[in-house]
Amino acid sequence: MYRPEVKILDVTIRDGGLMNNWDFPKSMVKEIFYGLAKAGVDYVELGYRADKRVFPPDEFGPWRFCDEEDIRDVAYTCDTKIAVMCDVGRTNQDDFIPKSESLISMVRVACYVPEVDEGLKLAQYMKDLGYEVSLNLMAVSTVKESQIDEALKKIAQSNVDLIYIVDSFGYYYSEHIRYLTEKYIHALPGKAIGIHTHNNRQLAFSNSVEALLAGAQFVDCSLYGMGRAAGNCTTELMLSFIDNPRYDLRPVLDLIERYFIRLKEELKWGYELPYLVTGVLNQHPRTALAYIKEQGQGLQRSLRDFYESHIR
Amino acid sequence: MYRPEVKILDVTIRDGGLMNNWDFPKSMVKEIFYGLAKAGVDYVELGYRADKRVFPPDEFGPWRFCDEEDIRDVAYTCDTKIAVMCDVGRTNQDDFIPKSESLISMVRVACYVPEVDEGLKLAQYMKDLGYEVSLNLMAVSTVKESQIDEALKKIAQSNVDLIYIVDSFGYYYSEHIRYLTEKYIHALPGKAIGIHTHNNRQLAFSNSVEALLAGAQFVDCSLYGMGRAAGNCTTELMLSFIDNPRYDLRPVLDLIERYFIRLKEELKWGYELPYLVTGVLNQHPRTALAYIKEQGQGLQRSLRDFYESHIR
Repeated sequence: MYRPEVKILDVTIRDGGLMNNWDFPKSMVKEIFYGLAKAGVDYVELGYRADKRVFPPDEFGPWRFCDEEDIRDVAYTCDTKIAVMCDVGRTNQDDFIPKSESLISMVRVACYVPEVDEGLKLAQYMKDLGYEVSLNLMAVSTVKESQIDEALKKIAQSNVDLIYIVDSFGYYYSEHIRYLTEKYIHALPGKAIGIHTHNNRQLAFSNSVEALLAGAQFVDCSLYGMGRAAGNCTTELMLSFIDNPRYDLRPVLDLIERYFIRLKEELKWGYELPYLVTGVLNQHPRTALAYIKEQGQGLQRSLRDFYESHIR
Repeated sequence: MYRPEVKILDVTIRDGGLMNNWDFPKSMVKEIFYGLAKAGVDYVELGYRADKRVFPPDEFGPWRFCDEEDIRDVAYTCDTKIAVMCDVGRTNQDDFIPKSESLISMVRVACYVPEVDEGLKLAQYMKDLGYEVSLNLMAVSTVKESQIDEALKKIAQSNVDLIYIVDSFGYYYSEHIRYLTEKYIHALPGKAIGIHTHNNRQLAFSNSVEALLAGAQFVDCSLYGMGRAAGNCTTELMLSFIDNPRYDLRPVLDLIERYFIRLKEELKWGYELPYLVTGVLNQHPRTALAYIKEQGQGLQRSLRDFYESHIR
């Protein structure tokens, strides 16, 4: 049993890029795209398209910007569609060409709840260019419910088709996720809901499953969970969960074996205790990332001290 | 909000011992017991009490046997109670002294569903010695539902107070766990239900939470998830979930920092792809353990090959 309308969107390069400054070799990204296409993954997000006036190109890998020619070097038109993300306030609209001339199918607009007006404006711009568009409302665990309701009212009146619940801090339990999914579905008739989770409390996969069972249609995941800090719901777990015969786990096992086991040892995303601490306390993982970097440089500060400095 | 009757039982030494042949230094086990007592953990399982006629003592660490004098060297009588486990068919009843003379509070009898008669007999023997007793029905995901129902009928007529649902292969989703927990509660009026999970699909914690929400009273967990293969629900996640002011996360952070981060790198329990494969396919992790050992010895066999040899 599966719902054919459910779509898997792999965010490895985009969210994983937060751990390596988007510095993936082109040959690797090409193999990843081809492998994910063989696995039947519905969408592959190849990175951000960030404003080069804000982010100097020589300080970042290519997938921070996703130039059309870079995309063309690693991907092709097939059943697996290409997505890129852009952030409100960090995007130059002029960097986007009409969909008819681009390999990109979907543009995902990310914003915080207070920025929803700008988010919807940017989304409409992308829609007018011909793209599928999602609006990804980040860090909803940190705002009042009334603010979420207010934002959903505005979104309901827009013509964005897909809205993501984003648990940026890896804070939510399954009951929160079910509640939010039902709230979004109820507030946004005719629109699809997506789920994007983080694994601070080892709940990324189970919360993603919960959202799907509650009616979400899009689910984000990444190879071996690669993503900022505690990482994401893993693509391999999601493929093993959904019975759609379109999916094949094997090309994903190949990719993880070839690249991601070693990469994880080096970059240390996933379940690590500093990320657990920020997740439990509903805080941004930046202090945990800094703490882990410190430890790697030989600085000694106990986990207890890290924890106590966060509960104060 | 918390239910005061919910009890946390730490299985680090017992289930973790499956990864290091129960070869924990006494000083370490002592620090673990003292730390878990400071953290407010309700029960600490110090190992198996296995039959020395079946398991030659010189081939195993001391926590395979949990001699009374070894327990006395590492633990003391306090609010944190001591548990040991014994397996049907691998236990010498004469190794157990009356509860009044022992530091042990609880004996956990482990058996497979077809062995339930022997399990109940052994449980009654321990009960007669004065111990709290649990019956841990292992690998229930591999037997027919009618066999589980049959076993539960027999257990209902016994005077064992605590029965564990054991997801030995890390196969279940939360809906299975809820279904089983409700089934056990319904079939076993007046008895407490416990939950023991494995993390093959990153569901150990979420499934444990689900069982508690469905009415389970006892939950197994281990420090940093240390346990066979994919390991267990982690003690630190469970302490962060339950709001009981009795619990303190900090001594557990100290223990993990001191011992378990390094130990995990060495022994490789936790979310590893071969364990995902056996979990997804509802199979014993022994082939995955052997595969990982092979890889450590430099033998090359692809994950794809491992997977394909299991789905055939």
